[in-house]
Amino acid sequence: MDVEKRINEYSLIINQAMEEYLPQPFGLQKNVIEAMRYSALAGGKRIRPLITLEFCRISGADIAVAMPFACAIEMVHTYSLIHDDLPCMDNDDIRRGRPSCHKMFGEATALLAGDALLSLAFETALCDNNMNGIKAENALHGARLLATASGAHGMVGGQIIDLESEGQKVSLETLEFMHNKKTGAMITASAQIGCIIAGAPKELIIAAGMFAERIGLAFQIVDDILDVTGDKEKLGKPLGSDKKNDKTTYITHLGIEKSKSLAKALTNEAISYLDMFGSEAKFLKELASYLAFRDR
Amino acid sequence: MDVEKRINEYSLIINQAMEEYLPQPFGLQKNVIEAMRYSALAGGKRIRPLITLEFCRISGADIAVAMPFACAIEMVHTYSLIHDDLPCMDNDDIRRGRPSCHKMFGEATALLAGDALLSLAFETALCDNNMNGIKAENALHGARLLATASGAHGMVGGQIIDLESEGQKVSLETLEFMHNKKTGAMITASAQIGCIIAGAPKELIIAAGMFAERIGLAFQIVDDILDVTGDKEKLGKPLGSDKKNDKTTYITHLGIEKSKSLAKALTNEAISYLDMFGSEAKFLKELASYLAFRDR
Repeated sequence: MDVEKRINEYSLIINQAMEEYLPQPFGLQKNVIEAMRYSALAGGKRIRPLITLEFCRISGADIAVAMPFACAIEMVHTYSLIHDDLPCMDNDDIRRGRPSCHKMFGEATALLAGDALLSLAFETALCDNNMNGIKAENALHGARLLATASGAHGMVGGQIIDLESEGQKVSLETLEFMHNKKTGAMITASAQIGCIIAGAPKELIIAAGMFAERIGLAFQIVDDILDVTGDKEKLGKPLGSDKKNDKTTYITHLGIEKSKSLAKALTNEAISYLDMFGSEAKFLKELASYLAFRDR
Repeated sequence: MDVEKRINEYSLIINQAMEEYLPQPFGLQKNVIEAMRYSALAGGKRIRPLITLEFCRISGADIAVAMPFACAIEMVHTYSLIHDDLPCMDNDDIRRGRPSCHKMFGEATALLAGDALLSLAFETALCDNNMNGIKAENALHGARLLATASGAHGMVGGQIIDLESEGQKVSLETLEFMHNKKTGAMITASAQIGCIIAGAPKELIIAAGMFAERIGLAFQIVDDILDVTGDKEKLGKPLGSDKKNDKTTYITHLGIEKSKSLAKALTNEAISYLDMFGSEAKFLKELASYLAFRDR
């Protein structure tokens, strides 16, 4: 499939850049850097940085310009996974088919590796050498968005709601609010930062955000579906973790079929926002559909 | 004492600004925001933000200009204390005379409160409304320094070395290296960011860093001394925690008297770097001496 090929091509250059931006493990801080690298270079779909690069490209700039920010976003994502897997959070032993970070390096090192990745995200995004002609105002704007999207009113806000909802029946409204924070905020930031870095006008930045918010939610609904109907090997993690953790999901509220319809409707709505970008947005449209019908 | 009066005056305006920059607890993210506020508004000496404001002032700008960055630095400091106190780290139940964050709010909420404070630090430093005429390039430079100082090659690097040194005899060299990372990096950033925000020339930024690195180390040596000879009530925490945790300190290597001499020598060296700033640096010189002879 063409979309998969392009995702893989993007993955390759993103992995290469991640490798470059991550520090080398040496000296007395060796262990924490190894833990950072273990989790940050563990693969994963690299959807967030891909979205940043693609929005930068369709906004008329070279993807290389957005690479530091794209990798910064992936670092934030990685840090959130490391902390999410910790015993005091979801207590997950497996991540991407391998032992989770704290299983490999111990809790304290995993905690610190997550912390350091969040700092590294800002270091990478703001690094002088990486500015490649980005206007200082746009770099500030992008970094500000990264901070807001990752914090208490964004991703971390969603994590706390998720955590406190465990074992409780939550409304569909709260579930949507939680996902919009926990994963939506960073996916939205991924899209908008791509536009911002490229110097796109305000209306395109807004449209990118509308697109991303919807595919973010659709992505999460498909996640809920896959946790029930997916393939353990393909997913690289055990199924049924939502049920095990007594989590309310879209499946609880709507069942599988209606959840699938909702994901599809959100995806179509998302795609409609891309018309403003013209024909160059073709791949992002295909990507949105691909994510809605993915099996991993 | 005059220095104490001025420290208290600074504390007052810093606390006021912290109160403003921290989000209000409401909605579904209420708990994590309450935990952030609990720790960030718990008092403390506010030495880091004070240093930022003072270096901004003696570099010729209004202290209000550096307030967002000053508070950002204090937020990073607060987050590091929250994570440091967690059971998988130092496992401290008491901080500043009160239950530590995870004792009040539980481990997961404390972990996330720390995470959110790090994001909030960058959000605060980079917030549009807070730019008050700071040049975008200087804001970027300041935020970059904040990221570097807090990450794997700065504060977190020091934390991992500290953690891995527990129960081991470490050399004086490693001890100094660890402190220069764990606390020195952020204190150095505090001073340099004050200068950067004010648009000070490179040689002053360097001098500020030299000053701060030395008082940072002196501060840590005095901490080691107070953990043995201090007053539990004044310190707001139990004594002897280094011994309890089997940590090598300056006392282990040098004993109390020689450690005191070293702290004094470092302080004098630090003070000499302030001559470049002229007579306006008087308070920072007094502050350095005050910190070297403090009892809390």
